[in-house]
Parts: sequence; C-alpha cells; structure tokens
Amino acid sequence: MCNLPRMDLAAIQLRPIGAVVCPVQRPTDENWGAVVSRIDLAPEYAGGLDGLADFSHVLVVTFLHGAEYRAERHLRRRPRGLASMPEVGIFAQRAKDRPNPIGLTAVEIVEVGATHLEVRGLDAIDGTPVLDLKPYYAQYDRVAEPRMPEWVNRLMAGYF
Amino acid sequence: MCNLPRMDLAAIQLRPIGAVVCPVQRPTDENWGAVVSRIDLAPEYAGGLDGLADFSHVLVVTFLHGAEYRAERHLRRRPRGLASMPEVGIFAQRAKDRPNPIGLTAVEIVEVGATHLEVRGLDAIDGTPVLDLKPYYAQYDRVAEPRMPEWVNRLMAGYF
Repeated sequence: MCNLPRMDLAAIQLRPIGAVVCPVQRPTDENWGAVVSRIDLAPEYAGGLDGLADFSHVLVVTFLHGAEYRAERHLRRRPRGLASMPEVGIFAQRAKDRPNPIGLTAVEIVEVGATHLEVRGLDAIDGTPVLDLKPYYAQYDRVAEPRMPEWVNRLMAGYF
Repeated sequence: MCNLPRMDLAAIQLRPIGAVVCPVQRPTDENWGAVVSRIDLAPEYAGGLDGLADFSHVLVVTFLHGAEYRAERHLRRRPRGLASMPEVGIFAQRAKDRPNPIGLTAVEIVEVGATHLEVRGLDAIDGTPVLDLKPYYAQYDRVAEPRMPEWVNRLMAGYF
C-alpha cells in the first residue's frame, strides 16, 4: 500500500535562506507573543520580499537546528513530558524533536526591508536557520473553527 | 548585518516520511478543494499518528519535487505569469518554484489509520514526498482577519 517516492532520498538537501536574530538564546515555552525578531536573508534574495508588506502575516518555516529525533523517545510522547498531557504521536503534536525538524509559525509582520524582515511572535531562538517565508493567505491557511482536543488549550496557555 | 548560520549547510538533509497518493497526476490551479488524498507513511512511523483524529485539520508539509528555482525567472515574478497580477517577490507569493521547494497546506482530516491518513483539499500531485504533518492549532495557525492585497482573492478564486 505504501507508495513511497522512488526518488533519490539524498536529493532532498535544503539551504537556509537566512537566519533569525532575536534576544531569546534558549528554548522556552512561554511568552513568545511579545518577542520581536529580525530575519536576515542572504543578499542573493534581495527583491524576494517585494510585496510582502501588503500582507499582515507571514508563515516562517524554520530548521530547528537544536532538535534531535529519537524514535524510542519521540515517536509517541506526552507533550513537553507533562504528566497532565496524554501520550500522543509526534504527528499529533508540535514538539520540535520530529523526524524532519521543521518549524512553522504564523507571525505578524512588523517591518519589511530589502533583505530583512521584522516579525512579532516567532517562537525560534537566536540563530535559527530559516528555510522559507510564505505570505499568509486566508484561502490556504485560515481554518475558521478548527476542532482540537482540550489538552491543546491547556498546553498553549501562556506560550504566546 | 546578515547573521547567517555558521552551521554546515550540507547538514540540512531531509528524508520523506511518506508520500501523497491521489488521482491528480499533473500540476493544476483549480478545484483542489474536492480532491481526497491518501498520505502513506513509512512503516517506521506507525504510532506517530495516534491522537491526530481528535483534530479536524492537519498541516501537510511537502517537498515539491517537480519544482525548479531559477533566480532570474522566479525571484520576482507575476503569480502564475498572469499579466493581471503584480510582479512580486517569491516570499510574497506561494509559487512552487522557490529557493527551498517546500509546500504547505492546511487540510481537512477525513480518516486516520495506523500508517496512513486521508485528507481533503491537499494541492499536491500523486507521488509528492511528505516531510511533516502538524496538527492545526488555533494558537499557532489561525489568524482571524489577515490582511492581504486584493490580487490574492482574484488569484485564488476557484483554486480550492
């Protein structure tokens, strides 16, 4: 049944387009909503941000360089290791230690420059490599009333 | 000013966790909303989907294997090459030919199995490698009233 791609797996190599500059040096699970971060792009992408200032929000795709996935510890776990959380699969939670450590957050745009961007609410530590920036489209990204289990609300209280 | 990561760039190697199985064989820009797709995971991720059925939506992160980024053509372009669209940077549009060809779509969950998932509205052709699955958290992913330029509504009419 499993129709895995026949492509050369080693062909999936990504290069950062830039990096996060912010005051947060260590991972935390609190108060990200107040953090203003700068994303510096490599000079070759000058022009790539043109038009982004017409959007209020951007999706930041990061490479979580400090993460490490070990199946025996992370395939199924309680979010943040909390006894008050249910044990769920890695694809039912947002933990950083994932098979592919890709981070994704929708953030508010503060300022757009030629090769930099300032955003509010990005939960990524200083130096985090950035893989992609996508403008937030209501059509793609907004789900008006997503259904979620109740533990998500408890887990995320105070995170942003 | 540019604080690009000092890490070994070749270290960013990703492996698909699975692949899309669906009836759509060629890229299109219409009617994705009706498409039901199956995502088959590699057997080693059995258990990773546990708990996902409690969510209504999932974010599917794909590797757009057919894309090809050429700076001179894609750094700035009119979306879909349409004369009716403004010329904007690649980070202000969702075109597939990006520096890192990562796709991202929020889709409705139809069914969750042990190593497969059925979703509705995934705009990825048959065989597309999947890099990650993330449950849709209102706290992370929902922007109640995103501001967008008017061309996005014209571009996206009929896409889903």
